[in-house]
Amino acid sequence: MITGTITSLHVTDVRFPTSLDQHGSDAMHTDPDYSAAYIVIETDAADGLKGHGLTFTLGKGTEIVVCAVRALSRHVIGKALGDIVNNFRDFYRQLTSDGQLRWIGPEKGAVQLATAAVLNAVWDLWAKKEKKPLWKLLVDMDPHQLVSCIDFRYITDALTEEEALEILQNGKQGQRDREEHMLRSGYPAYTTSCAWLGYSDEQLKKLCSDALKEGWTRFKVKVGADLKDDIRRCELIRGMIGPDNIMMLDANQRWDVQEAISWVKDLAKYKPLWIEEPTSPDDILGHATISKALSPLNIGVATGEQSCISASTHKEGCHNRVMFKQFLQANALQYLQIDSCRLGSVNENLSVLLMSKKFNVPVCPHAGGVGLCELVQHLILFDYISVSGSLDNRMCEYVDHLHEHFMYPVIISRAAYMPPKDPGYSTEMKDESVLQYQFPDGEIWQKLILEKKVEA
Amino acid sequence: MITGTITSLHVTDVRFPTSLDQHGSDAMHTDPDYSAAYIVIETDAADGLKGHGLTFTLGKGTEIVVCAVRALSRHVIGKALGDIVNNFRDFYRQLTSDGQLRWIGPEKGAVQLATAAVLNAVWDLWAKKEKKPLWKLLVDMDPHQLVSCIDFRYITDALTEEEALEILQNGKQGQRDREEHMLRSGYPAYTTSCAWLGYSDEQLKKLCSDALKEGWTRFKVKVGADLKDDIRRCELIRGMIGPDNIMMLDANQRWDVQEAISWVKDLAKYKPLWIEEPTSPDDILGHATISKALSPLNIGVATGEQSCISASTHKEGCHNRVMFKQFLQANALQYLQIDSCRLGSVNENLSVLLMSKKFNVPVCPHAGGVGLCELVQHLILFDYISVSGSLDNRMCEYVDHLHEHFMYPVIISRAAYMPPKDPGYSTEMKDESVLQYQFPDGEIWQKLILEKKVEA
Repeated sequence: MITGTITSLHVTDVRFPTSLDQHGSDAMHTDPDYSAAYIVIETDAADGLKGHGLTFTLGKGTEIVVCAVRALSRHVIGKALGDIVNNFRDFYRQLTSDGQLRWIGPEKGAVQLATAAVLNAVWDLWAKKEKKPLWKLLVDMDPHQLVSCIDFRYITDALTEEEALEILQNGKQGQRDREEHMLRSGYPAYTTSCAWLGYSDEQLKKLCSDALKEGWTRFKVKVGADLKDDIRRCELIRGMIGPDNIMMLDANQRWDVQEAISWVKDLAKYKPLWIEEPTSPDDILGHATISKALSPLNIGVATGEQSCISASTHKEGCHNRVMFKQFLQANALQYLQIDSCRLGSVNENLSVLLMSKKFNVPVCPHAGGVGLCELVQHLILFDYISVSGSLDNRMCEYVDHLHEHFMYPVIISRAAYMPPKDPGYSTEMKDESVLQYQFPDGEIWQKLILEKKVEA
Repeated sequence: MITGTITSLHVTDVRFPTSLDQHGSDAMHTDPDYSAAYIVIETDAADGLKGHGLTFTLGKGTEIVVCAVRALSRHVIGKALGDIVNNFRDFYRQLTSDGQLRWIGPEKGAVQLATAAVLNAVWDLWAKKEKKPLWKLLVDMDPHQLVSCIDFRYITDALTEEEALEILQNGKQGQRDREEHMLRSGYPAYTTSCAWLGYSDEQLKKLCSDALKEGWTRFKVKVGADLKDDIRRCELIRGMIGPDNIMMLDANQRWDVQEAISWVKDLAKYKPLWIEEPTSPDDILGHATISKALSPLNIGVATGEQSCISASTHKEGCHNRVMFKQFLQANALQYLQIDSCRLGSVNENLSVLLMSKKFNVPVCPHAGGVGLCELVQHLILFDYISVSGSLDNRMCEYVDHLHEHFMYPVIISRAAYMPPKDPGYSTEMKDESVLQYQFPDGEIWQKLILEKKVEA
């Protein structure tokens, strides 16, 4: 019995001044301040448990998402948590199909980011009520209830409710062994901390060398601003990590379709596993064209080498399940990156995990930013234990930033995510961090404004 | 010489309480309050001219777009209008590629709606400076300058700058005759005023009969909530308008792919010209499947009847040029509906008009709401005079609502849009309307709140 009616939803604009250090810079986002619209929901239940949720943003614009969260809050306050989770599909539909608000999306942009933040808080609260980490709540859940959380609207031509149920029922087989394996060894990770565009070669070398010592074997390199520069950096990194480790490229939507093909061909000798976001995240057919054109570069793989020596297309910017559906239908990606804060929370991610299983495409989650690692580890653990049952060609992104602001930060051991054990969705930030970094009134920002390092 | 530096950008949340009368209801938006984020920009030029711009919204959520406009305003204030319009592509790119804000989109949702509103104001001001209605500014513009307004990023695999230039140069031929034809006869329109879901049969009959008397020959019917109800209403309307007039259906994203196909087949006997928005606006491949499935129902057309007796797919919800590009590449639409307030203003619409020309698909603009008719008439006039050169299978939506709030309302004569003659983009609202209908402080809303007809 899940008790409590939601009595309040509080949202805060929390920003970290990462642009001052060029953390997180890429070809399209040269000055990000990693930020979040951060939510706390409270109920009238005697247990006093709170739900914490967030969506990740890049600084300016966070206030727009905060505004969207406030617009959604009327659908949340006054609802009984038990009614929500026992009819989660309807609640999801209510948030995403508000007759007036959906015009601003639908299911995309600021309103979808806000939906993610709100629902992440609801899932956190539910998991806390059940005294389980979110991944375990999902793993233990009955397939019928899991399916009842998913809105199948617009995807039934790719995945029906019956097919989803069947996948989940099959996933029960061997689940316990896989859970134990995860608790023992963790979920394999790759690092994006080493090779941001804004870093100097000295920084790159130092970070890369440190990462190798820590046991990392998979490295992502940001490319796309300048070809000569990319060649030099790929040469440097491939030299550092050697031929057996894995390197991926990420262009952050920098190119047009033909440009992407020719640019990546020029980097092919460094044997990247994939090229991520070569062009507009909306361009399904463009990604299909790029995939097809780069497929011959996989010839090395066919001869028996590791799968790490291929070049494939890969996505991070899909704004909803309808886009992912088409990427899968069009063979436009070979690695599918879910995002815990851009898709509509666990609910929409469940539908994407199940479609990926059906289309036999490995899921390699997007993470980094603020809290994305904390959240997405739960989803990928569930994917392995209860859906895909496989670690082949699979790994979860890791970026070593800003974890210190969380109550239950990720634990990385030998380049793997160790399963969280605390109840909830690992979404809760430290009160002090929220207070100090809230924009623009927090102490950190007031100081930067006074010092004229940032605009008010 | 275009003078003036932009000194201020003022944005207002203007809402009309249309939900109280069920104006504009459809299968997904049952209670819209037609609204706008309305912008006024001022410069320091001695002429005192102001630019007015807007984007259309449905009530709640307008405040989110207003917030996004404020976030964009730092890219606008302090800019010389001459610098903007002489390097319009760069300015467009600056608004849509802000390193932090683009995360909230990119080029979709609230930030893209805000971009449209801001740029619509800039175009209005530019046209006023040139003392021309916007359509005439475009018609008279040198093809090189027109092309310089377009951001070709992500669409060069479908349309290059050189191809765009060639289309515009060819369009110069016979331009004067087509302009005179428009000034004489206007651009053909169709009406959506008659058959909203919320209307009673009596209302439907009365509106339909009045429209026929006024010379309307093309009628759009909202469908998708209940099949029996749709059959009854289609029967009624086809009966009223007779076999020779044109009927279109609009489902406003109500269906999944297979459901759309089967539902429309059940309405095929009423010989609709098109089915509009059968499913998610993001589902390019789904629309392609629906198009293919409904194509056999066009057999009547192939036997030599008017093209009005076909059933085809048709789109309104595309959020940017990348989506339109793919709809065209995938043969997923047979009629392309541009939108003056969802795409990134004239700039992005130009790229879509040119792609449609290249793919030989007729443009039939979306209009209605608040101000959409006023704005989009300029774009479709330009399309006929300078791009497509054809009226075959083409018409522009018209809805008879809320024109009284505009300084230069559309003029409809014998079911055609008569070309506006006043300088500007017809975007300017009456000061009194803006004052009375601003939300929530305007007199109209304060009264409704006091009377407890709406929530504060």
